[in-house]
Amino acid sequence: MRMYDIIAKKRDGGELSDEELAFFVKAYVRGDIPDYQASALLMAICLRGMTPRETARLTLEMEHSGDTVDLSSLEGVKADKHSTGGVGDKTTLVVAPIAASLGVRMAKMSGRGLGHTGGTIDKLESIPGLRTDLPRDEFLRIVREVGVCVAGQTGNLVPADKKLYALRDVTATVESIPLIASSIMSKKLAAGADCILLDVKTGSGAFMKTLEDARTLAQAMVEIAAHAGKRAAALITDMDRPLGNAVGNALEVMEACETLRGRGPADLTELCVELAAGLLVMTGKASDFTEARTLAQGQIENGQAFAKLREMVAAQGGDAAALDDFRLLFAPVVRYEVRAGEDGFLCGIDTERCGAASVELGAGREKKEDAIDPSAGLILRKKPGDRVRAGDVLAEFFAASESQCRTAEETFRAALRFGEAPPEPRPLIFDRIGF
Amino acid sequence: MRMYDIIAKKRDGGELSDEELAFFVKAYVRGDIPDYQASALLMAICLRGMTPRETARLTLEMEHSGDTVDLSSLEGVKADKHSTGGVGDKTTLVVAPIAASLGVRMAKMSGRGLGHTGGTIDKLESIPGLRTDLPRDEFLRIVREVGVCVAGQTGNLVPADKKLYALRDVTATVESIPLIASSIMSKKLAAGADCILLDVKTGSGAFMKTLEDARTLAQAMVEIAAHAGKRAAALITDMDRPLGNAVGNALEVMEACETLRGRGPADLTELCVELAAGLLVMTGKASDFTEARTLAQGQIENGQAFAKLREMVAAQGGDAAALDDFRLLFAPVVRYEVRAGEDGFLCGIDTERCGAASVELGAGREKKEDAIDPSAGLILRKKPGDRVRAGDVLAEFFAASESQCRTAEETFRAALRFGEAPPEPRPLIFDRIGF
Repeated sequence: MRMYDIIAKKRDGGELSDEELAFFVKAYVRGDIPDYQASALLMAICLRGMTPRETARLTLEMEHSGDTVDLSSLEGVKADKHSTGGVGDKTTLVVAPIAASLGVRMAKMSGRGLGHTGGTIDKLESIPGLRTDLPRDEFLRIVREVGVCVAGQTGNLVPADKKLYALRDVTATVESIPLIASSIMSKKLAAGADCILLDVKTGSGAFMKTLEDARTLAQAMVEIAAHAGKRAAALITDMDRPLGNAVGNALEVMEACETLRGRGPADLTELCVELAAGLLVMTGKASDFTEARTLAQGQIENGQAFAKLREMVAAQGGDAAALDDFRLLFAPVVRYEVRAGEDGFLCGIDTERCGAASVELGAGREKKEDAIDPSAGLILRKKPGDRVRAGDVLAEFFAASESQCRTAEETFRAALRFGEAPPEPRPLIFDRIGF
Repeated sequence: MRMYDIIAKKRDGGELSDEELAFFVKAYVRGDIPDYQASALLMAICLRGMTPRETARLTLEMEHSGDTVDLSSLEGVKADKHSTGGVGDKTTLVVAPIAASLGVRMAKMSGRGLGHTGGTIDKLESIPGLRTDLPRDEFLRIVREVGVCVAGQTGNLVPADKKLYALRDVTATVESIPLIASSIMSKKLAAGADCILLDVKTGSGAFMKTLEDARTLAQAMVEIAAHAGKRAAALITDMDRPLGNAVGNALEVMEACETLRGRGPADLTELCVELAAGLLVMTGKASDFTEARTLAQGQIENGQAFAKLREMVAAQGGDAAALDDFRLLFAPVVRYEVRAGEDGFLCGIDTERCGAASVELGAGREKKEDAIDPSAGLILRKKPGDRVRAGDVLAEFFAASESQCRTAEETFRAALRFGEAPPEPRPLIFDRIGF
């Protein structure tokens, strides 16, 4: 088998065989296929697409390119949840404890933030003492004893994705639904859960700018799971504005705690309840979404969900007291206000720019090696649809220096769109796929 | 300017600006753009195409990536001729002397053969003493004094094409008409002629398998020349069977001599007269093809064209006596006959396989470093359309060993297609573009 022929076949719109996809993934990971051949194939895939069979086969080959996590020692249905990424998306910190408090085993591996989107691991690490680099047996023990654990990736999980993603990132071959689907699902499948709930974001701050693309991606991922003998389902949700009000690591942990206490922002609360309901339906803990939402809402009201988060934090070595006394995790040097210049309505927030402003405040990374400031970030005091009067505080910034705030203010102001009338309301949840 | 954005623009079907194409070519030649980014762009070009403006700009950037030949010290119109390559194509050895004998200045740089197609330089070098690695001033002097010179490429001509072609060759990105057109025309423009006659081959042995593709390629090359302020025109000619009867280096020189003496195979003679006529029309030496054909034919009949070839060979240090006494250039060790097994008609010859057989006989190269045997090759004794009786000689092989002949026989026999009736006749010249 020759890589040249595989490239030519895809260039001409052909369907690659299982053997060809296996050859490509194995030989590329081994280093036997040069990057310039791989990138030619990736571009051909971007432009010619892949069938559901090809996409599933590519995913399974990637999944098995390295270690996989064996959750079979845990009793019951093991669930995972994945978001395609957004700004202010702290849903895992709320949803996983709700589901776990109702008996769903949440064995979740998460990533770090890069660019304008945050990562759950960075958020959790703003809690003093909390460890996310857990050895496999400790991870499994916490899931068994507490019902939920959120850890960083350990071991050599899906090296094919690491290598392919790095190449796609510099060759403009990221934007391909089959490649995005296989990248996400190879990691989810390798992480070992039986049920995978996908939160596919759409809108200006999401990777999928259109609802149609988001639906296509969700459908592709649901099909991949079916090919692998697993269950996946997806919600298509809004990322045309930041989720909730807080953007930043400790700030988001604080907002997650407030939400688990029943005091969170409406949009974040609604989405978290819906995602938790999705997990309950998938794992058979509820028979439909109506029942599931009531169950999830009940765990917020009776305090059991928040108690589960405290339990998890403690099990991972974190100081659970910080979840009550935020001064233990949030200590910004500078607080800075951004105020409105004139009257009107806030009509929109460019989500990517808002994320970029939070990175400038120190809450995220431009490059993998960058350090982050756990206390840095921003709180939106106005959201799209809100009336604004001149002088109103639009947002509070938190950073290590005034100069960071001034830089971020420029970026943030460019993200805001004002008007004389409120914008058309936009749904938070667009669709459900695979339920 | 970032290569990433250029790749993404072409991936999305955009038209690259002059600045973007210049950036790509210059930075790639300098080594500032890695192969994996270049191959992603090349694949995007393969699948998205390029506009005539983009193709012309890419070509001009490639042309100026290295040295160019300045023919301005030569008086009169300087012409060049290029074939897209075929098996048994020795037309340059016939056409250039005809045109030069009528006052067209033929300053021609040629290449060596690779794979199933031969190269004019290899053919000429079968003449004892003949040099093709001529310093620039000697090349110009011979053109000035004799009117024609065929030399190998000297200097650092079009390094962008060398580097891009090597990458395309291993990334399945050769098959793109804009890329093929820019590769050919960048070299032709850098070689400095005012008029460029293109012989675009079509058929099983040609790069352009269909007439439509051949026309598109010809049109693209004619347009590139116009953008560059030069004149190009093309004939679309058949390469569904080898041209003439001889395939091999000395064998083809001998057949070219016979053709210049008026004793050549009909197809080769017809095509050479047509190509020479094209050059005469383009350079204003004749007002139309009818007049031009008569002129060209006359130079064969009166012996002036052959005399011009002898003059050129002598000027390039070759032994012109070898053109009369073929024993001075042709001394094969083994002569071998391939005979027909049964009666019928020869309906077709797979041209690529026939070329491959000649390579196995020692007449060509698989890899650039391979040595060639000037006396090796084959002569077709039957051509498609001919009646064949069992025992008839189909071809004569010439090689250094019997074992080479036996290997080549297998390849050659697989190239032949027999039938009970003669095939439909196929035109030799399909179209003229740009006259």
